[in-house]
Amino acid sequence: MTYTEGMLRDGALENKTIIVTGGGTGLGKSMAAYFLRLGANVVICSRKAEVLEQTATELATSTGGKIIYVECDVRKTDQIENVIAKTIETFGRVDGLVNNSAGNFISPTERLSYKAVDTVVDIVLRGTYYFTLALGKYWIEHDIRGTVLNIVTTYATTGSGWVVPSAMAKSGVLTMTKSLAFEWARHGIRLNAIAPGPFPTKGAWDRLFPAELAQKFSFENRIPLHRTGDHQELANLAAYLISDFSAYMTGEVITLDGGEVLAGGQFNFLSEVTDGQWDAIEEQIKSATRGGKSPE
Amino acid sequence: MTYTEGMLRDGALENKTIIVTGGGTGLGKSMAAYFLRLGANVVICSRKAEVLEQTATELATSTGGKIIYVECDVRKTDQIENVIAKTIETFGRVDGLVNNSAGNFISPTERLSYKAVDTVVDIVLRGTYYFTLALGKYWIEHDIRGTVLNIVTTYATTGSGWVVPSAMAKSGVLTMTKSLAFEWARHGIRLNAIAPGPFPTKGAWDRLFPAELAQKFSFENRIPLHRTGDHQELANLAAYLISDFSAYMTGEVITLDGGEVLAGGQFNFLSEVTDGQWDAIEEQIKSATRGGKSPE
Amino acid sequence: MTYTEGMLRDGALENKTIIVTGGGTGLGKSMAAYFLRLGANVVICSRKAEVLEQTATELATSTGGKIIYVECDVRKTDQIENVIAKTIETFGRVDGLVNNSAGNFISPTERLSYKAVDTVVDIVLRGTYYFTLALGKYWIEHDIRGTVLNIVTTYATTGSGWVVPSAMAKSGVLTMTKSLAFEWARHGIRLNAIAPGPFPTKGAWDRLFPAELAQKFSFENRIPLHRTGDHQELANLAAYLISDFSAYMTGEVITLDGGEVLAGGQFNFLSEVTDGQWDAIEEQIKSATRGGKSPE
Amino acid sequence: MTYTEGMLRDGALENKTIIVTGGGTGLGKSMAAYFLRLGANVVICSRKAEVLEQTATELATSTGGKIIYVECDVRKTDQIENVIAKTIETFGRVDGLVNNSAGNFISPTERLSYKAVDTVVDIVLRGTYYFTLALGKYWIEHDIRGTVLNIVTTYATTGSGWVVPSAMAKSGVLTMTKSLAFEWARHGIRLNAIAPGPFPTKGAWDRLFPAELAQKFSFENRIPLHRTGDHQELANLAAYLISDFSAYMTGEVITLDGGEVLAGGQFNFLSEVTDGQWDAIEEQIKSATRGGKSPE
Repeated sequence: MTYTEGMLRDGALENKTIIVTGGGTGLGKSMAAYFLRLGANVVICSRKAEVLEQTATELATSTGGKIIYVECDVRKTDQIENVIAKTIETFGRVDGLVNNSAGNFISPTERLSYKAVDTVVDIVLRGTYYFTLALGKYWIEHDIRGTVLNIVTTYATTGSGWVVPSAMAKSGVLTMTKSLAFEWARHGIRLNAIAPGPFPTKGAWDRLFPAELAQKFSFENRIPLHRTGDHQELANLAAYLISDFSAYMTGEVITLDGGEVLAGGQFNFLSEVTDGQWDAIEEQIKSATRGGKSPE
Repeated sequence: MTYTEGMLRDGALENKTIIVTGGGTGLGKSMAAYFLRLGANVVICSRKAEVLEQTATELATSTGGKIIYVECDVRKTDQIENVIAKTIETFGRVDGLVNNSAGNFISPTERLSYKAVDTVVDIVLRGTYYFTLALGKYWIEHDIRGTVLNIVTTYATTGSGWVVPSAMAKSGVLTMTKSLAFEWARHGIRLNAIAPGPFPTKGAWDRLFPAELAQKFSFENRIPLHRTGDHQELANLAAYLISDFSAYMTGEVITLDGGEVLAGGQFNFLSEVTDGQWDAIEEQIKSATRGGKSPE
Repeated sequence: MTYTEGMLRDGALENKTIIVTGGGTGLGKSMAAYFLRLGANVVICSRKAEVLEQTATELATSTGGKIIYVECDVRKTDQIENVIAKTIETFGRVDGLVNNSAGNFISPTERLSYKAVDTVVDIVLRGTYYFTLALGKYWIEHDIRGTVLNIVTTYATTGSGWVVPSAMAKSGVLTMTKSLAFEWARHGIRLNAIAPGPFPTKGAWDRLFPAELAQKFSFENRIPLHRTGDHQELANLAAYLISDFSAYMTGEVITLDGGEVLAGGQFNFLSEVTDGQWDAIEEQIKSATRGGKSPE
Repeated sequence: MTYTEGMLRDGALENKTIIVTGGGTGLGKSMAAYFLRLGANVVICSRKAEVLEQTATELATSTGGKIIYVECDVRKTDQIENVIAKTIETFGRVDGLVNNSAGNFISPTERLSYKAVDTVVDIVLRGTYYFTLALGKYWIEHDIRGTVLNIVTTYATTGSGWVVPSAMAKSGVLTMTKSLAFEWARHGIRLNAIAPGPFPTKGAWDRLFPAELAQKFSFENRIPLHRTGDHQELANLAAYLISDFSAYMTGEVITLDGGEVLAGGQFNFLSEVTDGQWDAIEEQIKSATRGGKSPE
């Protein structure tokens, strides 16, 4: 079997109703599609009704699953509560939430206005805690053992320049994951997160950068496993985390990035040394230290 | 579906040959059993030939899979090389390795002799890097895209008193995982790890502690999700990590512990406050701060 | 020498002008006092003009240093820009910033309104990135090698229930620290953080909790080093991080908490076992395993 | 004041006796020198008696402090116990220990023999826990509130290829630091660590690499703060951690590396983009998204 196939046994998400924010496009759409194939009811929401409608129709046809869409700006609590109400109206209850909506500015930080930073932080952090808080209250009140999956980033942990608003916000989401996982475990509510590496959607990267830079910084060249991820790989992991198969996991963030985050190790720049150069270095070390041991 | 069932699609490990150290008992045995059910060839090894034989016979019968056993002290490189040779002889090649052998002393550290610490470090750390190095050389030479799964602990990251030899050794294993994941990605070799919480085997915990202490410290009471793990849950995650479905993941450690590791959060001791006490605290804060905001 | 004394050589902060947000009370006041003693010019700001005035007068008298205060709600960018303008007007420039303002609600998360969460996030995260962005732009434009010190918490890393708004916000601040430390290193700007454990200000803890709970959860009992911190200890570390003695450190967070954060280690609950019980356990392990080695 | 000067007040280490392993050269020598200047008694040890003698004589002369040396292979527990005995004989007691001895091989891991890995692990990990265990037993028995400072590396946390034996061993040391910090806090014993970036000793780096590689990988070019560290900067931090000024800190590792470890952030490769290119990217993003918001 290969990683482009679905991983879980058929019916793994039967009788589950899952809301996916930002579910109209990209990874959100791919997760929604796989959840449907596994038997879940799915609700997608975002600010773009037209895109949502098209995606919902497409996925209903291709998977035969039950899907609805609701327009929603996650920065507005009344719109979030409307999504939840519509979901319950249609499917009777909510079991899972994937906080996948995001925004980002790739820019030197000192070029950003206060307002630009606010925009990203509000979509990513505020939107996520609004939705999680709304559903948490509903789950606790109705004694439902709900599950939250947050899509974060590796730089939520490591930090990263040039995406500082997103880094701050995703970091907040990650810490919310760990914090509520402990606090709400008593209610049977689980929260986990995925930190994906590059899972490009058609053209997104190219749109961001001029051609020469896009090539220079191509993910394929920089990722230790020398490729970008396939959407199904992310969907497989997401389905596991939203399903009961991960019932003993909570507060965890799983990185799926082809090894990208590992590059920061102090001597990993030596990946550029060739075999022939290593032969030469070995000789040099031997003659320098005479015992074959180099001092640190 | 429930978490006590197998998660992956049938045949997920077909055509894979996997060595499981410490595979005669406990979690090693449970992983071996599930790998067999998913179509893998399995080799179990440990120091106890009698136990291995019994487990191999039992699993061959119950799963219908192909399994052999080889006696091996992982602190002896010739015995490790013998396991690999026997595996190739029988199954033609090796695809995966689960470093699961372990030893531990639960004790105040100052009560341990130098030798006692050495024993644990040698089994856990030395045994793991010996086996990984031996297979890595074989995989690189034969251009096989092998996979390693290391069983570590949450205290490999957080540290923990009273298990210091194991903590040091498991931490070394964890860092080996991240280090070689980057270095050997070029060869298509992946390494990941699981940090399990309490997955008790019958009686192990009771044997360790006098009855009064065993009850006082019962895992059920201390785990946020209020239960210990089921072996199948660990086996599900292990099978995912050893399979091609996780082909884009490397250098990652996944915690599966019912939220146990989260308990260290600074204010998580407040889990003992009752609802009625929270009502009283709310009143107190309101009257103390008048604005509803408490100073940090 | 003891930890209640100043650590740095006299004059360590001469010719430096440092802004301390939340500098009117508590740890902010203690840091301001020590900075003054080391020769710095200090600007304190907060929302409470009356408290600021009193503190400025008191510290000017006790230290003989140069200090001004400016009223400022860190959620308002015009007020932040006013603090910076007043500082430059008075002292000619700004060299350092301590982001110390904070707010917190200790509460089950599901009891909080959206607005309550927003309030804490806005003071802690928004206020910090507003101030840092404003000063960063100023430093880059004027080619000043400024320094930022952020006061965070250990739960910014570990997460914690019952303080979720603060945990999310502090986590964002921590990640900002790491992110901008890399991005702005080219401009000679450094950012570091301190995660303090319990450094109580008179009565704060008692005000928060009813007497029975305050005693039950007393920090003295829960901290491995069995005491709370002395404000001078925090001030010593802060002065080091704001001074040129830490010129080679950036993006770092230093925990100063009496070992509190370590408690999460998996077997650290065994701190409650007495010496006599350890004797009994040793006997039991020996007889159970016959080789003195306990299985993990 | 500049970072090449001593930071602590005179006499900060008076009445303290400190053992520095690997104290004959490099950073160990620099720390020993500063400890002497601050009033400590110092014992240096390593395998090279001749180097030790020369260093002891030099430092006694330059600082006027009290220093002795004892030959010691930290892999031999009887030699460690001899160092401790000689120290007590000369100075009456031991207060502090700096575990600074190290060995390393920079090499593709698959080129290393089992024995080569063992050598590094034994010096770094075994040597450290032997010495710490020996002193811990002495301190607990004599009720002395001792302090340990371990010199680790950033790759003890992040992992790194091409230095895998050292990475595993240093990681074990780091986890020992956190584990014993909690366990031995009850005895008043503190353990902390420093993860230094590049603090080169004359020629070490050049000896390791052929000239072309040494230049290509020069630390100055790769370090965010664009320089290597000065030995006094490391000595300042070490003296703080060994002194009573850090009495409330335990189980902590402090990175002092010019920001080197931060480089792993996902978008930090963008440090190579020029100002002009950023102008172009801004234009491109604006025209592509029309709302100024780029999708993630």
